[in-house]
Amino acid sequence: MISFEEFKRLDLRIAQVKSVREHPGADKLYLMQVDLGKEVRQLVAGLRPYYRPEQLEGKKIVVVVNLEPATLRGEKSEGMLLAAQHDEDVVVLVPERDLPAGSPVL
Amino acid sequence: MISFEEFKRLDLRIAQVKSVREHPGADKLYLMQVDLGKEVRQLVAGLRPYYRPEQLEGKKIVVVVNLEPATLRGEKSEGMLLAAQHDEDVVVLVPERDLPAGSPVL
Repeated sequence: MISFEEFKRLDLRIAQVKSVREHPGADKLYLMQVDLGKEVRQLVAGLRPYYRPEQLEGKKIVVVVNLEPATLRGEKSEGMLLAAQHDEDVVVLVPERDLPAGSPVL
Repeated sequence: MISFEEFKRLDLRIAQVKSVREHPGADKLYLMQVDLGKEVRQLVAGLRPYYRPEQLEGKKIVVVVNLEPATLRGEKSEGMLLAAQHDEDVVVLVPERDLPAGSPVL
């Protein structure tokens, strides 16, 4: 169990995927540039087995924006996108209707 | 900033909305029964200004399932759904493609 205060420490935002390219050093990872409204960040995400770049580009997704940055196989990741998993499939979370990039998740 | 370990303490799941009715004691709140695959729980959610019940029923949404239960105006809430906000609008988060209720968010 976690408290509501713990949950509220998490900063989740709507982000728009600007571009997606293959991580040069990891065959399951993408390097994604995402627009958070006031800034663009790079995410490293393990979506390559599940999505083609053009299925992600332009899409509004959900990103944890206050996670400590990580370096994954030599590439900086400045956030983590949310995706659900079932069996061998992974599906990104999206807002049910369109919202501007940067919109907070309550 | 939060650590990855802190983030992983959060248990997010895909849930299917089974039914939605008005909270008898609060004009902005709904009482929602949601299916988490192995159990059905009640959520109290402030979606009444933004959605009609039939716009939510049947939909797959995203719920924090390990939040301490709360009582809101006399009704038990056993989880919190995720929704994004912009200006006067609130939009629920959904998986971009269909997944079974209970699927974990990574």
